[in-house]
Amino acid sequence: MSVIEARFGARDAKLSGAVEMIHGAGGRATAELIRTLFRRHLDNPLLAQGNDQAAFAVEAGRMVMTTDAHVIAPLFFPGGDIGSLAVHGTINDVAMAGARPLYLSAAFVLEEGFPLADLDRIVASMAAASRAAGVPIVTGDTKVVEKGKGDGVFITTTGIGVVPEGVEISGDRARPGDVVLLSGSIGDHGIAVLSKRENLTFETEILSDSAALHTLVAEMVAAVPGIRVLRDPTRGGLGATLNEIAQQSRVGIRLEEAAIPIKPDVSAACELLGLDPLYIANEGKLIAIAPPDKAQLLLAAMRAHPLARDAAIIGEATQDPHAFVQMRTRFGGNRMVDWLAGDPLPRIC
Amino acid sequence: MSVIEARFGARDAKLSGAVEMIHGAGGRATAELIRTLFRRHLDNPLLAQGNDQAAFAVEAGRMVMTTDAHVIAPLFFPGGDIGSLAVHGTINDVAMAGARPLYLSAAFVLEEGFPLADLDRIVASMAAASRAAGVPIVTGDTKVVEKGKGDGVFITTTGIGVVPEGVEISGDRARPGDVVLLSGSIGDHGIAVLSKRENLTFETEILSDSAALHTLVAEMVAAVPGIRVLRDPTRGGLGATLNEIAQQSRVGIRLEEAAIPIKPDVSAACELLGLDPLYIANEGKLIAIAPPDKAQLLLAAMRAHPLARDAAIIGEATQDPHAFVQMRTRFGGNRMVDWLAGDPLPRIC
Repeated sequence: MSVIEARFGARDAKLSGAVEMIHGAGGRATAELIRTLFRRHLDNPLLAQGNDQAAFAVEAGRMVMTTDAHVIAPLFFPGGDIGSLAVHGTINDVAMAGARPLYLSAAFVLEEGFPLADLDRIVASMAAASRAAGVPIVTGDTKVVEKGKGDGVFITTTGIGVVPEGVEISGDRARPGDVVLLSGSIGDHGIAVLSKRENLTFETEILSDSAALHTLVAEMVAAVPGIRVLRDPTRGGLGATLNEIAQQSRVGIRLEEAAIPIKPDVSAACELLGLDPLYIANEGKLIAIAPPDKAQLLLAAMRAHPLARDAAIIGEATQDPHAFVQMRTRFGGNRMVDWLAGDPLPRIC
Repeated sequence: MSVIEARFGARDAKLSGAVEMIHGAGGRATAELIRTLFRRHLDNPLLAQGNDQAAFAVEAGRMVMTTDAHVIAPLFFPGGDIGSLAVHGTINDVAMAGARPLYLSAAFVLEEGFPLADLDRIVASMAAASRAAGVPIVTGDTKVVEKGKGDGVFITTTGIGVVPEGVEISGDRARPGDVVLLSGSIGDHGIAVLSKRENLTFETEILSDSAALHTLVAEMVAAVPGIRVLRDPTRGGLGATLNEIAQQSRVGIRLEEAAIPIKPDVSAACELLGLDPLYIANEGKLIAIAPPDKAQLLLAAMRAHPLARDAAIIGEATQDPHAFVQMRTRFGGNRMVDWLAGDPLPRIC
């Protein structure tokens, strides 16, 4: 038994230990960590190729590629953890092009001293999210940094997918008169993470909405292939995301506050904390913009899916050279919805 | 002028400032950082789509995907920096399947307080490496963590590429009797980084060999489509990489120490520091394994390329159920080349 085996030998011993610098050295300890933790959970034929890259067949067509670094704190929160979030977030960014996600990669930056049991739990959660979505993690990388040079674990996931023929969805395609739809209530993810971080308790526990939206998108695209824009209002929330789209498409957007779904608990928490739910992150919601004559058809397709039962038409695109986002309030007033000015909730994803 | 504009307004003001938490909030400061720093350097039509994913056409065939987190310290070293390294490393992992790299993604984890001027220098270096290689960075992400929760900047790059028809290169394809080739001298990268980190000076400055190897691989595959294995001996060096291949292919490997190219300065530095060059990382070298009747043809193709002028046949694969890597020393002895047992050089890539 080598020194390394003595230190890292049995699987259970490993899982009760912590990440050490040698796990990142590219030698036997790295290989053991990959075999006994990453491959054990994420097992699939492409990952099992065991090369520094995964190889697979693709058909001719349009493809998309997207990447996301995940640095959320805390790592575990009501309704999810950094592992499931990293899978959902990247699947969703693929899906927001109307694409069918094919494969994911995952790169881990681990901090020395991070409990292997927590890493195990996170990778198990990634594996469960990936299996439930039908999108395998086919290649990966692991690096280790010294204690105090990281924060437990950061995970970067990258995804690729194929765009069905005839679908052309992009943030610059909204036109004046188009209808803005939202798949469900806002603010759940951000408030769930904040409540965990700040140890807040509400009457009922607020759970993150973290979810993979690709099957919802597939139904939407099948019903209305001419959807113009899809985007998930994550960091920066509905407010920042609509401003991005307005700028890309050079249109204004007018919202109806009363039409925007929000759970009473989330609304109450925002009021209590002095937060504007328009800027709170979501991880299982999408914004869709479609031509007005397709709006009802699209809304019906969304409401037929379990992840968009509360879908609603929340506004419309307007002619506006300034690309302002504005909102008619519940009381009939008019409010500018500017870009997020501060950062009430850092490290939310 | 908004508060944000006052803080982040002019481009030069930004570049003399530092990363702040608000740069990761997904609002206007994030958008400004992307526009004035990332897009300015990395500009290309796919990145300019400005969506959360890049869309492009692909032809039918075999594709590969690979990802690498880069956490090297120091960020700037003789012969390169984390930016060029992140581009070269991922291009090389694509190329080691015999594939032609198509596109890269890049995800940044920035530490609060990191100088924007340094970030600018790193992204400019990425852009130069990506342009020189002809492999654009088409999508990205930026996150910010609090001071003390990161280490300046971590960069995860992911690459995709297409495998030419008839090429099937994988770590499990070496056969007894196959010949092992190496594209050039070992240890340059690791010693260059270490010398910078430890403030060592040698007679002549030792430079990292960091380079994109895809054009070399293209020449090699054109000359010998039946190459069995390609792999770049990065983290863990030649020793760890050959052990990986031996295990995957279930063959032994016998090396000739006298045949392994090493620069006199690197050799002297290793002796001085008590390091074994077999385990020192390289970032611009590759190992190739090919059938014996193709070895000379492959060697000639390699030597014709500027990045492999010192290519050499360094050993052969053998029948060995233990998959041991062994080396005939300069003095005629026999030495086991085991997995890396310790970690003399953490955070080398």
